[in-house]
Amino acid sequence: MKIIIVGASGTMGSFLSNAFEKEHEVIRADRNSPDVQVDITSPDAIENMFKKVGAFDALICTAGPTYVGCWKNLTDSAFRKGVEGKMMGQINLVLIGQHYINPKGSFTLITGALSHDPQKNFANASAANAAVEGFVRAASIELEKGIRINAVSPTVIENSPHYFPFFPGEIPVTMKQLEYGFRKSVFGSNTGQIIKPF
Amino acid sequence: MKIIIVGASGTMGSFLSNAFEKEHEVIRADRNSPDVQVDITSPDAIENMFKKVGAFDALICTAGPTYVGCWKNLTDSAFRKGVEGKMMGQINLVLIGQHYINPKGSFTLITGALSHDPQKNFANASAANAAVEGFVRAASIELEKGIRINAVSPTVIENSPHYFPFFPGEIPVTMKQLEYGFRKSVFGSNTGQIIKPF
Repeated sequence: MKIIIVGASGTMGSFLSNAFEKEHEVIRADRNSPDVQVDITSPDAIENMFKKVGAFDALICTAGPTYVGCWKNLTDSAFRKGVEGKMMGQINLVLIGQHYINPKGSFTLITGALSHDPQKNFANASAANAAVEGFVRAASIELEKGIRINAVSPTVIENSPHYFPFFPGEIPVTMKQLEYGFRKSVFGSNTGQIIKPF
Repeated sequence: MKIIIVGASGTMGSFLSNAFEKEHEVIRADRNSPDVQVDITSPDAIENMFKKVGAFDALICTAGPTYVGCWKNLTDSAFRKGVEGKMMGQINLVLIGQHYINPKGSFTLITGALSHDPQKNFANASAANAAVEGFVRAASIELEKGIRINAVSPTVIENSPHYFPFFPGEIPVTMKQLEYGFRKSVFGSNTGQIIKPF
């Protein structure tokens, strides 16, 4: 299976790339990846990525910039970080990528528990995550040729301990659990699901 | 109670304005309202509206433009209709309005069942609705001075029969049910809730 992993140099993306490349052709996509470069805030850059990669079987996205910080600094312009990044960046990967993906292929996006379980400083991520989840459900009834779409929605991740203080009482998701979540989406048959790998 | 109703000339907004003005001071806000004009896609226009109206006790928004149409025409630019309208328009009403609202005041936004129950042609609304719902949950733990925030999430509305064919099998929400939903948010004590008035 030919799998594009967007955000491949990040904590999640590099773990998944290493895990999946044992059995599959993994294309690591990122701003500076040697495989293929992409800035997901640019629809043109996304289109160029797909043109370079050609037909593929699965796209995983683990890239999702959002604004993290004090509510009192959360203005319209700060909010745009998550709107252009985690929200429209991922939505455009699907709107554009659907024209390049093979029949019965799959898109797996990244959201997070903040969509329904907010924490202070993360309102931008709550909105972006929830937007992507709403989009995933809607896209699942629109995509044709057996193309599937799901999101994986973890809480904090064990390899990102700098986030722990912001999520009091949240049991970290292990990297292996996270991998299982993506495996369920990519190699399973469900569509329109928000997969909680814990 | 001084209540701003944004979208006051629309189907929902005019019904709620007529219902609430019997007992409260209602400020009808809209692009062409004689009370106060606002284009919610412009943060500057929102700021100007609040400056004109001054301190208030409740804001209700029933305005939420989104792109409705064929999935194959749903590009990044089409998607922006809902991002700038129903999503960021409503989010900016809160981010800016929090500096003008009285202590213990409330914001009540409009979403819709499409956030979790998609229909073809409405993926933009699914994402925008879900984004607003995620934001409402997050904002409810950030707003201070007892300020509350909720969303009302109807399905199709009895006074908008042109939408019925797009929502097969959906039981229309009556205008009175809708009014009850907004009453629950404005005059109740809950916060961070997605109120389903059916």
